[in-house]
Amino acid sequence: MNCNIVTIPGDGIGPEIVREACKVLDKVGEVYGHTFQYTKILMGGCSIDEYGVPLTDEALETAKKSDAVLLGAVGGNVGNSKWYDVAPNLRPEAGLLAIRKGLNLFANLRPAYLYNELADACPLKKENIGDGFDMIIVRELTGGLYFGERHTEEADGVLQATDTLTYNENEIRRIAIKAFDIAMKRRKHVISVDKANVLDSSRLWRKVVEEVAKDYPEVKLEHMLVDNCAMQLVMNPGQFDVVLTENMFGDILSDEASMITGSIGMLSSASLNETKFGMYEPSHGSAPDIAGKDLANPIATVLSAAMMLRYSFDMDKEADAIEAAVQQVLTDGYRTGDIYSEGCKKVGTIEMGDLIAARI
Amino acid sequence: MNCNIVTIPGDGIGPEIVREACKVLDKVGEVYGHTFQYTKILMGGCSIDEYGVPLTDEALETAKKSDAVLLGAVGGNVGNSKWYDVAPNLRPEAGLLAIRKGLNLFANLRPAYLYNELADACPLKKENIGDGFDMIIVRELTGGLYFGERHTEEADGVLQATDTLTYNENEIRRIAIKAFDIAMKRRKHVISVDKANVLDSSRLWRKVVEEVAKDYPEVKLEHMLVDNCAMQLVMNPGQFDVVLTENMFGDILSDEASMITGSIGMLSSASLNETKFGMYEPSHGSAPDIAGKDLANPIATVLSAAMMLRYSFDMDKEADAIEAAVQQVLTDGYRTGDIYSEGCKKVGTIEMGDLIAARI
Ligand SMILES: CC(C)[C@H](C(=O)O)[C@@H](O)C(=O)O
Ligand SMILES: CC(C)[C@H](C(=O)O)[C@@H](O)C(=O)O
Repeated sequence: MNCNIVTIPGDGIGPEIVREACKVLDKVGEVYGHTFQYTKILMGGCSIDEYGVPLTDEALETAKKSDAVLLGAVGGNVGNSKWYDVAPNLRPEAGLLAIRKGLNLFANLRPAYLYNELADACPLKKENIGDGFDMIIVRELTGGLYFGERHTEEADGVLQATDTLTYNENEIRRIAIKAFDIAMKRRKHVISVDKANVLDSSRLWRKVVEEVAKDYPEVKLEHMLVDNCAMQLVMNPGQFDVVLTENMFGDILSDEASMITGSIGMLSSASLNETKFGMYEPSHGSAPDIAGKDLANPIATVLSAAMMLRYSFDMDKEADAIEAAVQQVLTDGYRTGDIYSEGCKKVGTIEMGDLIAARI
Repeated sequence: MNCNIVTIPGDGIGPEIVREACKVLDKVGEVYGHTFQYTKILMGGCSIDEYGVPLTDEALETAKKSDAVLLGAVGGNVGNSKWYDVAPNLRPEAGLLAIRKGLNLFANLRPAYLYNELADACPLKKENIGDGFDMIIVRELTGGLYFGERHTEEADGVLQATDTLTYNENEIRRIAIKAFDIAMKRRKHVISVDKANVLDSSRLWRKVVEEVAKDYPEVKLEHMLVDNCAMQLVMNPGQFDVVLTENMFGDILSDEASMITGSIGMLSSASLNETKFGMYEPSHGSAPDIAGKDLANPIATVLSAAMMLRYSFDMDKEADAIEAAVQQVLTDGYRTGDIYSEGCKKVGTIEMGDLIAARI
């Protein structure tokens, strides 16, 4: 197969980790007979430096024409960089929001998985983890507070700012369907998270999710309030299989869940539209402090490339091969600094990429 | 001193735990020469049963005329109770929102503290807790998504629901001042939590908090994005002293933080207005499953009564006495079921109240 991939190295450690992911993809291509072609576009701080905006129309068009997008990370240290002394819609993160909306990437999948080998890095006690932690957050990504009307106005000398949280039935239905489809391939358990005791949008959310659930009689559906979910994730994370939630709650809960794995450097993500098209990126940020030092953990990006093969190219076997190679590298005791523990072999970004590629 | 306290026993375990808190207050009265007079009002499910609404105007007026309110808990099992098959504004929790707004209780203080004696109950590993965990969340309680305009409408056969998040400078300023005042009596460190990379209301929040901070040169101010905060609470909770945040973020983060103490049955809260008036309640819910069985932990309510003495009645010495009595009971090895561990003495709700009162 011939695949046109747009890469967005972005800022900070982005270029280094994307490079390693492409290395692994190329090895997959070699072994399984595919050609991956890469077209690079700029987004985030590097695009601001070059064009004055975090995402140009041309870059967005190039991404639209590709088969899939592989993103590193965008942004710098907020409040500490030339990129942030400008209007919000000109900052690096605005590029991320613009590409999500521009490519209609409404379904954000964020797996959180605790590797046995990394149990030491997990902040929770063993008895709280129980039989293991393997969940996926299905976050709505193009609606809610992120994209609602907002404005700041002055009345009688007092500034007042407003953001709007809106969802319609169709937006809720399509993300719910994604979550149930994914649950069918997993442990068949969806926990839908909302704040239905307060929000109208959550009450509509609950109603539509209930309707969608009727088409999946095998899947067990539970509703959980967002505050309770934030609590349960710490107390009893093993109970979660698929968590379905709206944009802002998903942002908060996925970061919380990621920490339970002890290593945000291991977590991949996919952002999908209604077709097979998607954007794939690590769950972590651009880590400007360690950029260019061969210290970054490329595994989250490598695993994001595996998600790309699975969701955009139907290459399940090849995706399995990448995931198995990552597992093997961990079993063999190799660790980047962020996941290092006593007795393991410490390696840099590039060597980690080599080690994974060698195991494909 | 003569204090007129309105009690709201509420639903589930509410009546039992309020009874124990009053027992402890009465002992304080005896020892320190105060008179606490109680007037009971109905709120939540019990008010629905009696009057068809979760809070009557008369009940609210009675609360307004009191010196302080002591609340147990309201509500039942959502989706599992006659109280929930009605419009949202007629459900038990609506009473809680109505009294918060009606009494103008804009400042919700939620301490989260890990007792040495309960370290076993904490889900985090010792190395992640570090030198201890003792923080307080200062949550704005009468604005934001909770009280913004909301509506559900149909257009072309598609339902669409909207909630609104609004804050003005004055609302932000008064809660920020509370947080900084509290920080001055603690470790002088405020972390203000927002989502300023997305929300207009968060950008205004940040601006006003910065302005208020100028009046507190001794207090260190940091800003943290809400997703990062959800992560940091799990990874490194010891870094937090005072967390200042808006209503919905405060709801989520305070539940998460409470779990880090391992025992939501220990956590008190205060909701204050601009004067010394306040409503005091445990952070936990009405736990209908264990209601009436002498199993509930009354400590959160007892500690809420201590907060009442401190914030509404300026009785610092008396509040200290209650807190010391609770600490002593734990040191003496007494535990209700929720905080029980091997080797301790298990006691019920009433005995726990007696034990604390006896140590005043
Ligand atoms: C950078 C930011 C706008 C973004 C978000 O809030 O969605 C990030 O936190 C994420 O989760 O991808
Ligand atoms: C019961 C509910 C409306 C309430 C809230 O969301 O504020 C509760 O979760 C709380 O935190 O006091």
